[in-house]
Amino acid sequence: MIYGHDPRTGETVGSALSETDSAGVDKLVSAAAAAGTAWRATPAAERALALEAVADALLANVDELWQIADQETALGEGRLRGEVARAAGQFKLFAEVIRDGGYLEAIIDHADASLAPPRPDVRRMKRALQGVVAVFSASNFPFAFSVAGGDTASALAAGCPVVVKAHPGHPNTSERVAKIVRDALPHPDLLGLVQGMQAGIDLVQHPAVVAAGFTGSVAGGKAIQKLIDEREVPIPFFGELGSVNPVVVLPSAPVKEVAAGFAGSLTLGVGQFCTNPGLLFVPEGDELRSAIVEAVEGTSGGPMLAERIRDGYLGGIERLGELELLAEGKPGEGSLAVTPKVFTADVDTFAKKLPHIGEECFGPASIVVTYRDVSELGPVLERLEGSLTATLHGTDPGEAGDVVEVLGRKAGRLIWNGWPTGVAVCWAMHHGGPWPAATSPYTSVGATAIGRWLAPTAYQDWPDTLLPDELKEANPLSIPRRVDGRSQL
Amino acid sequence: MIYGHDPRTGETVGSALSETDSAGVDKLVSAAAAAGTAWRATPAAERALALEAVADALLANVDELWQIADQETALGEGRLRGEVARAAGQFKLFAEVIRDGGYLEAIIDHADASLAPPRPDVRRMKRALQGVVAVFSASNFPFAFSVAGGDTASALAAGCPVVVKAHPGHPNTSERVAKIVRDALPHPDLLGLVQGMQAGIDLVQHPAVVAAGFTGSVAGGKAIQKLIDEREVPIPFFGELGSVNPVVVLPSAPVKEVAAGFAGSLTLGVGQFCTNPGLLFVPEGDELRSAIVEAVEGTSGGPMLAERIRDGYLGGIERLGELELLAEGKPGEGSLAVTPKVFTADVDTFAKKLPHIGEECFGPASIVVTYRDVSELGPVLERLEGSLTATLHGTDPGEAGDVVEVLGRKAGRLIWNGWPTGVAVCWAMHHGGPWPAATSPYTSVGATAIGRWLAPTAYQDWPDTLLPDELKEANPLSIPRRVDGRSQL
Repeated sequence: MIYGHDPRTGETVGSALSETDSAGVDKLVSAAAAAGTAWRATPAAERALALEAVADALLANVDELWQIADQETALGEGRLRGEVARAAGQFKLFAEVIRDGGYLEAIIDHADASLAPPRPDVRRMKRALQGVVAVFSASNFPFAFSVAGGDTASALAAGCPVVVKAHPGHPNTSERVAKIVRDALPHPDLLGLVQGMQAGIDLVQHPAVVAAGFTGSVAGGKAIQKLIDEREVPIPFFGELGSVNPVVVLPSAPVKEVAAGFAGSLTLGVGQFCTNPGLLFVPEGDELRSAIVEAVEGTSGGPMLAERIRDGYLGGIERLGELELLAEGKPGEGSLAVTPKVFTADVDTFAKKLPHIGEECFGPASIVVTYRDVSELGPVLERLEGSLTATLHGTDPGEAGDVVEVLGRKAGRLIWNGWPTGVAVCWAMHHGGPWPAATSPYTSVGATAIGRWLAPTAYQDWPDTLLPDELKEANPLSIPRRVDGRSQL
Repeated sequence: MIYGHDPRTGETVGSALSETDSAGVDKLVSAAAAAGTAWRATPAAERALALEAVADALLANVDELWQIADQETALGEGRLRGEVARAAGQFKLFAEVIRDGGYLEAIIDHADASLAPPRPDVRRMKRALQGVVAVFSASNFPFAFSVAGGDTASALAAGCPVVVKAHPGHPNTSERVAKIVRDALPHPDLLGLVQGMQAGIDLVQHPAVVAAGFTGSVAGGKAIQKLIDEREVPIPFFGELGSVNPVVVLPSAPVKEVAAGFAGSLTLGVGQFCTNPGLLFVPEGDELRSAIVEAVEGTSGGPMLAERIRDGYLGGIERLGELELLAEGKPGEGSLAVTPKVFTADVDTFAKKLPHIGEECFGPASIVVTYRDVSELGPVLERLEGSLTATLHGTDPGEAGDVVEVLGRKAGRLIWNGWPTGVAVCWAMHHGGPWPAATSPYTSVGATAIGRWLAPTAYQDWPDTLLPDELKEANPLSIPRRVDGRSQL
C-alpha cells in the first residue's frame, strides 16, 4: 500500500492507496487511448473550452486542495493556493494557444508547374501524437508539475490523452486532483493515474504510450530513458533533470539587493526548486560577503518534502563540507526539517574541485565563489554542466565581457537582475537547457511546451474536402499560416 | 583502404582512400567545433550568402560531379545532374529560410506588473546547437542525401558545423563534393568528411558532437542509436529508416494511369528510394490487374548501388516468394543488375502473413494486394508499420471512407493521385513519419528540416544591448515574431 506522509511529523496521512498493478496500468492506458481518438478529432475551440473547465474546477476546489497537499508536503497555504492558481493558469494559457492555432505551424505551398521538376500542392501542419502521453510528476510541485501540471495541460491541449504516474510524495493530492480533472473533461478516461514504482515502469513501456514527460532527478531520468531504450518502438522522452543555476554578480551590482534576493531565492520552498541558485559568483570584498552572511543568517529552513529528499540534501551538504562554511540559517521545525547552508571558496579552489563540486545539491544550499576579476570567470563557467537558468546581476552590461557568451551556451534561460526561482508561464518562456537540465531542446513551461506532443504531417495534392480545416484553402479557422513562403496572419 | 566500385562491372574506380582513424576523427570534429564558434555568430544574411556560394559551386562543377558519381553508382547522367541541381536547390532554400527568420520562432512577452505574480520581460528564440552535427550519408542519393545533402545544408544554415560520414557506396564522390563545399564556405573546417565504419562510430560518440542525422536502414539506425545511448551526454538522433509506402487505389481511379504510374515509380532509380511504393492495394478485377502486368513487364531493372544492397534485395525477393508472382520486368544490365518483381495476394492472405510480409524490401519489388470492398482495408492498414508516405488514388474522395483516417496515422506525407517517389523541396514538405520511417517527429527534407539543429533560449529582463538582434525591441532584422501573444510579420 502507498501512504502519504506529513513532513512535519513523519506520520502517515490520508487514505491507504493501492499500487496499480500491470493489468491496472494496461486498463488505464487502453481506456485513455480509446478516449483519445475522439479527443484528437475534437475541434480546437471545443478542446479549449474543456481546458478552461479543468482550470475552473481546480480553482473551485482550491480550499480543499491546498489542505490535502499541505498535509503531504508542508508547503503551506500561501504557496499551495498560488500553485493551484498557477496550474489553472496553465490550462487557460493552453486554451489560448490552441485557439490561436499558430502552434500547428501550418504551411502551404501551392502547386507550381513552372518549376523543374513541377511542384505539387503541399500542405503541412502539426497534429497530436497518435497515442497516450505518460507523465511522471515531480515531488516539489504537487499541482503545477504533477497530475494537473504543465505536462498534462499541454498534452491534453495538443489532443493527447494522458496517464500520470503519481509522485509518492503526495499520493492523496494526486488522487483528488485526478478526480477533479477527470470529472471536468468531456471523457474521464482522457486522464489516468497510476501509483507505485512498478506502475511507472509498466507505463513507460506500454505500446500505446507515444511520449513521456518527466520532472525529477538525473538518476531518475536516466532510469526512465533506459526503460525507453528497451522498447521495441522508441518514443520521445522529455525529461527535466538537474540544474545548478549559476548566478554571476558583477562589480556594479547593488550589494544589499543582491544579498537579500539571493537569501530569499535560496530558501524559498526550503530550496526545493529545480531553479534554486546553487552557485553565486561574487567579486571579492567584505561588504557583499557580510551582507550575504547577514541575509542567510536571517533565513529559516523547514521540513523537506520526503525522507529521501532530506537524506539527499544531507548527503549534498556533506559533499560541500570540503569547502568553508560561510553562513547558515536557522533550522526549521518538523521531523524532516533542514538548515539552509552557504559555503564559500575562491574561484581557483572551486575550479580545482570541478566537476563534482558543481553538481546540484537539491535544497537550500549554495556556494559563494569569489573572484578577483570578471575575466577569471569564463574558463570556470565553461566547465559547468548545463542548467535551466543562468543569471547576471549588475547595472553595467558592459562589465559582463565573455561571461554573456559562455552562460548563453550553458543555460536555457538567461536572467538579468532577477532570481531564477519563479518561472513565468507565458508564450516566450523556455524552461529547459543543455544536459542534464533537460534531455532534449524542449521546454516544460510556457506555450511552446505543447510542441512536445505533436508531429508534422504533409498533404500532397490532397482534396480540400479531406484536408483538416487548418489547411483548407479558405482558412476557415483563421489561423496564422505560411503560404508560398510568406507568413500570413 | 576504401575503394569505389562501378556497379556495372564490379571493378574498383577512383582513388584508394584511407579510413579515417580515431585521431583523424577527433582532429576534424575539433576543427569543425572551433570554426563553428565564428559561424554561429555570423549574421544570417552572411550565412545565407555562404550557402548560396555552396550552391553555385556545386552547379559550377556538375559536369565533373555527375561523372564521378555515375562511376560509383551507375545512376546515369540525367538523374545525377538533376540531383546536383536538387542539392544546390536545398542550399538556396535554406538561404531563403534563414533570411526570413521565421524559423527562429522568436517570441516576446513584455513585462506585466499587473499580473500576480508580476511577469518579467521574457523573450525567446531558437539558436544553433552548440557544437558539431554528425551526418551519416545515404547510399541512394550521392548528392541530395550525402555530403552536400539536406542534413548538411540545414545544419550549416542553422549555424552548426558538420562532419559527414561518407557512404562506402560513393567514397570518391564524397571526397570531391566535400572539397567543393569546403572551398566555398568562409572556413573550410565547417565541413569535415570521414571515411570508414569505425570513423562513424568515433564520430557519433565524440563529445563535441551535439546531434546526428542519418538516412539508411532500420538496422543501421538502431546501431547508431545504441552508440548514442552509450554516450555520457545524450544527443538527439534524427534517423530516417525504413518505409513501405502503401498506395491504395480506389475503385474510381483510372486504370491505365495507375498502372503506368505504379510501374514507373516502382522502378525509378532501380527502386532504390525510401519512398518506393512497396504495397499497392487495388480493387479486384481483371482490367487493372492486366494493366499492371503489362506495365511492369515493360520495365527494366538495372545495377543496384552496391553488392550489399543487391543481396538485400535478393533476400527480400525470396521472402516475398511465398506470394504469387504477378509480373516481372526485364533484367537490367551490369554485374549488380536486378529484375523488378511484383507479387500479389488477396487482402486476407496478405493480412495472415503480417507483420513480416509488410516489411520493406529495398529495391524494385512490390506487392499488389487485391480487395473486394474498401471497408476491408482499414484493419489491414492499421497493422502496417509507420511509413514516410501513404497514397490514395481515385476521382471520388468520398470512396475512401475510414482509410483516410488510418493512413493519416501511418505516414508522414499523404498523397492524392500521385506517386511517393519524388519529394518536393519546399517550405511545407514533411519527409518523416512514425517509426520506423523516422526516429522522431522531424523532417529531413524541406524548410522545417532546419529545426533539428536548433534549441530555444529565453532571455528574462535581458538588456537590449546584449540581446540578439532577432529579439531587440526595435526588430532591426524585421523577422516575424509573436509579441504579447499575437503573431506579427
